[in-house]
Amino acid sequence: MTTPLRILGISGSLRKESYNKKLLDAAKALCPDGAEMTLLDWANVPLFNQDLEMNPPQAVTEVKAAIRAADAIVFATPEYNYSIPGPLKNLIDWASRPYGDSAWQGKPVAVIGAAFSRGGSVRAQMALRQCFLFLNMPPVQSPEVFVTDFAHTFDAEGRYVDEDGKKAIRQVLENLVALTTKLKG
Amino acid sequence: MTTPLRILGISGSLRKESYNKKLLDAAKALCPDGAEMTLLDWANVPLFNQDLEMNPPQAVTEVKAAIRAADAIVFATPEYNYSIPGPLKNLIDWASRPYGDSAWQGKPVAVIGAAFSRGGSVRAQMALRQCFLFLNMPPVQSPEVFVTDFAHTFDAEGRYVDEDGKKAIRQVLENLVALTTKLKG
Amino acid sequence: MTTPLRILGISGSLRKESYNKKLLDAAKALCPDGAEMTLLDWANVPLFNQDLEMNPPQAVTEVKAAIRAADAIVFATPEYNYSIPGPLKNLIDWASRPYGDSAWQGKPVAVIGAAFSRGGSVRAQMALRQCFLFLNMPPVQSPEVFVTDFAHTFDAEGRYVDEDGKKAIRQVLENLVALTTKLKG
Amino acid sequence: MTTPLRILGISGSLRKESYNKKLLDAAKALCPDGAEMTLLDWANVPLFNQDLEMNPPQAVTEVKAAIRAADAIVFATPEYNYSIPGPLKNLIDWASRPYGDSAWQGKPVAVIGAAFSRGGSVRAQMALRQCFLFLNMPPVQSPEVFVTDFAHTFDAEGRYVDEDGKKAIRQVLENLVALTTKLKG
Repeated sequence: MTTPLRILGISGSLRKESYNKKLLDAAKALCPDGAEMTLLDWANVPLFNQDLEMNPPQAVTEVKAAIRAADAIVFATPEYNYSIPGPLKNLIDWASRPYGDSAWQGKPVAVIGAAFSRGGSVRAQMALRQCFLFLNMPPVQSPEVFVTDFAHTFDAEGRYVDEDGKKAIRQVLENLVALTTKLKG
Repeated sequence: MTTPLRILGISGSLRKESYNKKLLDAAKALCPDGAEMTLLDWANVPLFNQDLEMNPPQAVTEVKAAIRAADAIVFATPEYNYSIPGPLKNLIDWASRPYGDSAWQGKPVAVIGAAFSRGGSVRAQMALRQCFLFLNMPPVQSPEVFVTDFAHTFDAEGRYVDEDGKKAIRQVLENLVALTTKLKG
Repeated sequence: MTTPLRILGISGSLRKESYNKKLLDAAKALCPDGAEMTLLDWANVPLFNQDLEMNPPQAVTEVKAAIRAADAIVFATPEYNYSIPGPLKNLIDWASRPYGDSAWQGKPVAVIGAAFSRGGSVRAQMALRQCFLFLNMPPVQSPEVFVTDFAHTFDAEGRYVDEDGKKAIRQVLENLVALTTKLKG
Repeated sequence: MTTPLRILGISGSLRKESYNKKLLDAAKALCPDGAEMTLLDWANVPLFNQDLEMNPPQAVTEVKAAIRAADAIVFATPEYNYSIPGPLKNLIDWASRPYGDSAWQGKPVAVIGAAFSRGGSVRAQMALRQCFLFLNMPPVQSPEVFVTDFAHTFDAEGRYVDEDGKKAIRQVLENLVALTTKLKG
């Protein structure tokens, strides 16, 4: 296989200094040989309204094309109210519609996450995995990566500096590449 | 108690002809004595971004005021991708922020829902209830109301005509009023 | 109210040196005035088989009587395979059957838990709360108590020595007493 | 591959006339070429107690050997109290212990289910899938099979007679075989 596998990273937070964006920056740098990662820019996706789904806004058409062009997905999610952020769910919903035209269909997927709350996004990651069942996205299940101790995980410039965490993220990506390759083969 | 208890109805769908809006219309008409229901207009709430939470848009300030003025909440939710709609989660997130200033705090809550998918929003209602734990909203647990057979539940004008369903909705509201009254007392 | 409120503590683990038993021992000692806690002995409850539910074993009859005699319930649960222990679920199932004769019906309930896994039983507690919906048990939602750092929580004799944790457990019990009293009143 | 793939069917109910056993009987008859299904007899597995896990009862040793010998697993589960049956969870727990010696590790898995409750085991199937994450069992995600209308699904002799359902079960098994083959390859 000479074309590198394309992994699309999606941050669950739109915050400028989002720790989940930084987590994806770390993941991008850790991407194994034979794969490359790009980050999805979805800041312009508006609120979903089913009345508009047959004639979606340009920003939606663009994110769906980016998702379709990817071989696999990595979500990095914070936790809001014991679930995934509303804006992230909104993105997932838009890209899954209209019925029969989901951009997520069959894409292998991994999840990592950073959150202040207990467990560091454990409930959000579970809530997100529940969507994968409907979306028919084969999940990487191990290892799981949770960040909750920000002070020891990121340095003053916001770089991810947890060496054990890097190994785990690298393993997640290798498992995602292996799963994607096997399911394609 | 001379002031009627104020129940705020929130549709999980912004669609014009939303069945969940119609379900709330039915609920409003079934509201027991001593309570009155109004429906929240949240169509103008933008996507949440934590960078804006200390200086929220006017639409957010208004929905938070409406939620705060309510004694109890009723959600009517469809099911998107085995969870609640992104826009509904977005509303919940906005109204819960910033930390320590949640408009949902302590509000008794009930859930009803209509969805084409199997079980008629059963997974969405469960995902929503998971948020209530963090939001500290005491839930009405019984009866549960699920609508999936639209053809027999709504007439040609979109009116809710399921007589057994009306009894269940009425019971949900009575239980919500009883719970709210007991927790206040 | 002159009769003390009866709280029944149920450990999710049958292990002799179970940390969840120790957690309940701590809770018992922290029980607020006007309430008293006893611990359920359910070691002899056999595997549930629906063929036997109309003629249950003596051990089942006894635990159902003990649950019925309680005004409120506190579960202390470990986490097995990201859910509650099979034996605990088995107890819950037996005491809920046959249909229409559940001993759990309407009992206010609180949850605490200790587990080695990330978050200290956070997934198990969520899985348990999902059952409360069907069982119609009004839940205490705040504060939540999770123990994962056993070395700093229990002393060499297995006594619970976390002073902040004691305050949280005490608050859980006070909230359970308040909820039970309000719902009865 | 000349050796047929071995699929192990596990009923979540021990009831003699269990609909989930009948569902597995139907699945067995629908097993695709290149695979064969046997049903696990786990009636003698006792309640789990961690004190015994290093020296498990003979019945546990036997079911773990049967699970290990399988290439893939199919669960057929009823729904008890909005989750999986306690005895089924107990079996899962026993076969996952002691730590590092789980018989489930890496086994591809599918889920079907029959239940009287709304949705026909939808909540139980979701609760079961949550365990697969910890157990590291790659799941078949589509199609999903739910049985709730027993009168039209089984004939008077208890045979599964739903022709559309048979197609769905057959598809589940084909997808399980394909997933297992790809992940092995």
